[in-house]
This record gives sequence, C-alpha cells and structure tokens, in this order.
Amino acid sequence: MLKIDGARLWASLMEMATVGATARGGSRRLALSDEDRAGRELFEGWCRDAGLSLRRDPVGNLFARRTGEDDSRDPVVMGSHLDTQPEGGRFDGVYGVLAGLEVLRSLNDHGIRTRHPLEVAVWTNEEGARFTPAMLGSAAFSGAMPLESALASRDKDGVSVGDALQALGWQGELPLGRRLDSYFEAHIEQGPILEDNGIDVGVVTGGQSIRWLDVRVGGQAAHAGTTPMPLRHDALFGAAEMILALEALAQRFAAHGLVTVGQLQIAKSSRNTIAGLVDFTIDLRHHRDDVITAMEQEARVLLEAIATRRELELEIGVHWASPATPFDTDCVGHVRAAVQGLGYSNQDIVSGAGHDAIHLARICPTAMVFIPCVGGLSHNEAEDVIPAQAAQGADVLLNAVLARAGRID
Amino acid sequence: MLKIDGARLWASLMEMATVGATARGGSRRLALSDEDRAGRELFEGWCRDAGLSLRRDPVGNLFARRTGEDDSRDPVVMGSHLDTQPEGGRFDGVYGVLAGLEVLRSLNDHGIRTRHPLEVAVWTNEEGARFTPAMLGSAAFSGAMPLESALASRDKDGVSVGDALQALGWQGELPLGRRLDSYFEAHIEQGPILEDNGIDVGVVTGGQSIRWLDVRVGGQAAHAGTTPMPLRHDALFGAAEMILALEALAQRFAAHGLVTVGQLQIAKSSRNTIAGLVDFTIDLRHHRDDVITAMEQEARVLLEAIATRRELELEIGVHWASPATPFDTDCVGHVRAAVQGLGYSNQDIVSGAGHDAIHLARICPTAMVFIPCVGGLSHNEAEDVIPAQAAQGADVLLNAVLARAGRID
Repeated sequence: MLKIDGARLWASLMEMATVGATARGGSRRLALSDEDRAGRELFEGWCRDAGLSLRRDPVGNLFARRTGEDDSRDPVVMGSHLDTQPEGGRFDGVYGVLAGLEVLRSLNDHGIRTRHPLEVAVWTNEEGARFTPAMLGSAAFSGAMPLESALASRDKDGVSVGDALQALGWQGELPLGRRLDSYFEAHIEQGPILEDNGIDVGVVTGGQSIRWLDVRVGGQAAHAGTTPMPLRHDALFGAAEMILALEALAQRFAAHGLVTVGQLQIAKSSRNTIAGLVDFTIDLRHHRDDVITAMEQEARVLLEAIATRRELELEIGVHWASPATPFDTDCVGHVRAAVQGLGYSNQDIVSGAGHDAIHLARICPTAMVFIPCVGGLSHNEAEDVIPAQAAQGADVLLNAVLARAGRID
Repeated sequence: MLKIDGARLWASLMEMATVGATARGGSRRLALSDEDRAGRELFEGWCRDAGLSLRRDPVGNLFARRTGEDDSRDPVVMGSHLDTQPEGGRFDGVYGVLAGLEVLRSLNDHGIRTRHPLEVAVWTNEEGARFTPAMLGSAAFSGAMPLESALASRDKDGVSVGDALQALGWQGELPLGRRLDSYFEAHIEQGPILEDNGIDVGVVTGGQSIRWLDVRVGGQAAHAGTTPMPLRHDALFGAAEMILALEALAQRFAAHGLVTVGQLQIAKSSRNTIAGLVDFTIDLRHHRDDVITAMEQEARVLLEAIATRRELELEIGVHWASPATPFDTDCVGHVRAAVQGLGYSNQDIVSGAGHDAIHLARICPTAMVFIPCVGGLSHNEAEDVIPAQAAQGADVLLNAVLARAGRID
C-alpha cells in the first residue's frame, strides 16, 4: 500500500514547532494571536508550494484544496487545528493538519488523482484557551453554535473573535456548513491506552458520552473541639464515603466506564470547624448513552443511601450532558481496512477528549485515526510522539482517504 | 448553700447585650472598638456601684477588686471577656464576667467578707476576631506572649493593639503576671454535650490536647476522558479513603478522641481533570497528651498504608500542637463540692474550645464552670442559654470561690 514521506512529515512538524516555541520544548500559539498567524502563514506557504488553493469561511476556518477529477463532488476533508494551549505541545492538532498536508504532498509525488476533491481544514480556536468554548470554529461550521455567538466570544482582555478575525483579515466567504463528503482527523491519543497496550494506531469508533453532575452535601458546621463525634453531621466525611462509592462504581462499569471527581469545595472551611457544606463534581464517561444513564442512576442511589444513613442533605444536579458520537461505519471501515492493509498493530478506541471531529460527525460521515503519545501526556510542553508512529498514522490517513475519495490511476 | 440573684444576673446580661446589639439578636463588640469601650463602661459603672476598685494592666486587661479581710493576700480572680465575634452571641465571655460581678454583688448583699481579696477580670481581645491571636490579653498576662508582640498585633486596617489601647486610655500600670491565688472562669459550653445529656452544670477538668496535621497527597493529574481507571493515580480518591479511615480512627478513640478534617484543596482543580495533588488538614483532640500521640501515630500508619497501596506520594507535617491543660485539683474540687452541695445535675467535662483560663492555668491554680448553651450553638447571633442554668452556674461559682477565698462570717 501507498505510504507517505515520514521524514518530510517530521520535518514539517518540527518547523511548525519553532513558531511560538516555548523554553521547555513546547509551543504557544493562542488562537488568532500573532503566533497563530505565523503558524498559519507557514502552513499556507507549504500549501501553495503543493499547488493547493486556499479559502476561508466567516469564522476563519481555513481550507486548502486539491482539485478532484470531478471537482463538483463534495470534498473529502482531513484536518485539525494549529492553535495550542498557553503551554501546549508540538503535536496536539498540528499533527492532524500536517498529516493531511503530507497526504496531499504524497499524492502529488505519485501523481495520483482522486475522483472527489480533497481538502485540509484548519479549524479556528480548537483549544478554548483564549476564547471559549473549545472547538469554536468547527462548532460554528457544523451549526452547533450560531456564527454571531462565535464572533461575540471575548478573551480576558475583552477582544472578541470577530475583532481578532477582522484584524487578521481571516473572515472569508466560503459558506459555513457547506456539504462535505466526509471528514477524517488524525490526532494524538492524549491518553495512555495505546502506549500501555503497545499499539501503533487507534481506530477511533466514536466520541464518549459525557455527563457532568453537581453534588451538594449539607451537614452541620460546628466546633471541632466541642462537638462529640456521635453528634456531628460532617459533610466531608459523608462526601468522602460518596467519592469512594463512586470509585467502586467505575469498577463495576469497567473497562469503559470512567468516573472522576475533579473539584471539591468545603464552604467557609476552617481547620477547626466541622464541614457543614461540601460541593463536588462528578464527570461520568462511557461510549454508550444507555450505560451512562445507568451509571448516573446507580450513582444517585448510592449517594442517597449514604446521605440518608448519615442524616445529611443531598442535592444532585445535571450540569451538562453530551451524548455519545458514534463515527460513520463506512469511514471507520476505511480506516480499519487501511491499517490492516498496512499491517500496523491497531485497536479500536473511543475518543475521550473533545475534537473538531465530534462536531463534524453531526453533519457528515466522520472518522478519526489516533497515534500514541509518550506517557499519555498532552496539553503539556513535554508532549511527544514517536516519529515512526507519526508516519504510520499518516499512512493510514492516506489510504483511508484515498479509498473514500476514489483513486484514479 | 448561698445563691446569687438570678434575676439581677439575667437583667445585667440583657442590658450588656444592648451594647452593639445586632439585627438578629446577637452582639458585635470587636476588641478595643467603640462598642467594646461602651460595654466596659457599662460594666465599670456597675462595679463602682458595687464598691469595687478598678485597675488595668499594660495590655488593657481590667480588674475589678473587692477588698479582702487580709488584703495583702493574693486575689482569687473570676472573669472572662466582653469582646465578641463580628456576629457574636450575648453570652460567650460576657457570662463569665457578669457571673463574677454577680458573685461580688451577692456577697455585698449578704455582708459576707473573705480572707483573700476577690477580683473580676475582663481580658482583652479574647475572640481574636479583630486582632490575632485569640486570648491575646490573657496570653500577655500569663507570659505566653511578650507584651511587645501583643501591642504590635494589627487589625486589617493596620491599627495596632498598642495604638488602640492608647486611644482608649486603657494602658494601666498593674503588673502583668502578678501573683494570683487562683482563677475561676464560668463560661457557656459552646458545644452540645451538657444539653444532650440533660445536665445543668459542667465541672471542667481541663483543656484538650490539640494537634494539627497537614497532609499532602500526590498523584498524577490527567485527562478525565482519556485515562482508563486502572492507569490513574487519583489523589482525591486516595484522600477520600484516608478521610474515612480517620473517621474510623476517631471511633476507636471514643468517647474523648475527636478527629476533624476542616480544609481540603485540590490543586489546579478542574471538573475534567483527575486530581493530581490534594492537601487537607487534620485536627486531633483528646484530653490526654499520651493518647493524642497514639492517635497521631495510628493516623500516620493508616495513611501511609493507603498511599502505598494506591501508589500515591504522602507527606504529613505537624502544623501546631498544644498540650493538654489539666486544671488544678483543689480548684476543681471546690467547683465539684459546690455543685454537689447545691444539688445541681453535673458531669465532668473537658474544654474543647480555647479560653483565657487555659493561659491562666499555666501560672496559677485554675478551674472552670460550664453551663449548657441551646443547641450547642456559639459564635452565632442565635447563641442562647436558659436563665435558670445561668443562675445555677453562678451559684456554683459563688460557692467555689468562697471556699477558696475563705469565708469570714
């Protein structure tokens, strides 16, 4: 099967990493900043060298296009993002964009044409570090967020996305939500599963269902020195028991059920005051909506039982819920066929992080390719990948896209 | 046995409560404020009416004295404080001062003289709400804190204790640390034990040993959506297990062992990030120093075992330790004899809160008398006591002090 040029891909990744390079080996290209502009300009130069045409939509999403044999067909799109966290890594997002570019360069090298046109998308403000929400550009494209809302989002200095786009001259006329044949995104896993299993490529079957709960435990604040243990209604002891019960719950929903308590606050906390009110969060994840509902129900039963036994007040609210996003059977099938044809070690995997592909999946057939990242580390200047695996992931992208777009020899 | 005038005591308590009265029925007389001055002036007027002489020491502690038959003897001192929390109650401190005054008024009524002189002390800044530390006046008196440090303590506006005393004209010449025969403090319990047991008077045998520990649990922060449960090192799950183990520890040291976790923070917490670092506090209490040491040792063993099993880092430091303060056998005996002679229901109790008596106990024979407070509530505008019990506590104070000071009929 056809392969991309791994050395060229790696060289491009390393050159892009010099734009906004940080002292500890990472990158800082906040969305719509001077560094983001410099990064995109570098990318645009490579695109022009590869004979690609460049267009933008009103939220600044950039599309580099290679003509199809039948250019009236909807494009098969690859892509990801070039913006980074404030102390971000060299691969999150960048890998998907440059792997897409490398696919088109390789097709040029081999003089291969496709029935459908091919594009590489650079989505605006994926990280959400400067403007909220994350994945703003793909949300606006897919219709998940109105354009006006996206343009009105402001950074902490009060600069809006609209202002920043205008200053950069990035507001294009390509319509949001135009028809795409399909979308393929290559990305680092941002987790430890592939590395832990010794696997080179992850065939991403979809995005997780996420449910965020807010829990409030009410007891009775009282003096730590004068209140006998049997007369206490300690909200923190109760919360601790609840949190351990949630850990056990995750084990019952193994291997795909995830439970995280990321935030916990004791109201008016003081070293010598019994906790009267404790708030904590629950993050539930599973790739099936019916299972996450079962997890939530079981969590409610467990917590209610603990609160009742301890004579504590309990409120549980749903803060946010995002349904599972199964990817397209045909697109995932092309990824699986490619990785199997290439003979790379692989496994099915569910995306635990948010990606532009999650938005795209709601408007067109979508799939993703994961490669391992060292130590599962991401959103960190030390983020790293193995060059051979970066090449393997792009090989898979190339062959999956070729199959979907229709190779013409 | 002799009794005080309960109606007069209650009337004085209610009149004092009008000074700095708050909207919800409490009192606000921050130390060395205009309200504190007004409260002391009301008290001083009552003292002059009772024929008492008034003197102050350099930290503003006020002493109202009734001459003894042999006035060269060291005084038997009663007292407490008149300053309050910002939203304080009507009885915390005030009760001990006005019960002392009521004892002297009652002796006057009955024309009873004593061999030792008697004094009522009003200690400066007991609450610690305006100036830190709490119990500043008695600390300076007892030598636990140098006078210079006490005078240099500043409120949040930068006003020092020394400045405030000078403005009030409260710096007297009575020596700090002068010899006292003994010290008796009546106080509300500030806890629920007496009320819960249906007891009218608590014979306080001493102050608790307190040990404050700082615990740091180190795990690995990671993405809540991409990190499988078996690969996590969740510092909060570990901390939750530790906190439940501490609750169980308190049960093994029942009924006198108290364990409180009042503060807990997750570093860089976020709803979808696994807790990487958790800090929490432990407040251990027991009336015996050897037992509190055993509690600390057992806590360390338990927490280490949990940390080891979960592959978490653990640091435990001692933040502060205050040894137990056993009160004087003879003085406590006088309190017990008084309450038994009066036939009031009573029990031995350990003081769980800090009191001026804890400092005084280091320089002279000391005892305390507790009365119940409604619902165990204190440091609260709703703080309340039952008038009959207020009178009973003062009856006990009267007879204990008379026995110590030597009644002359």
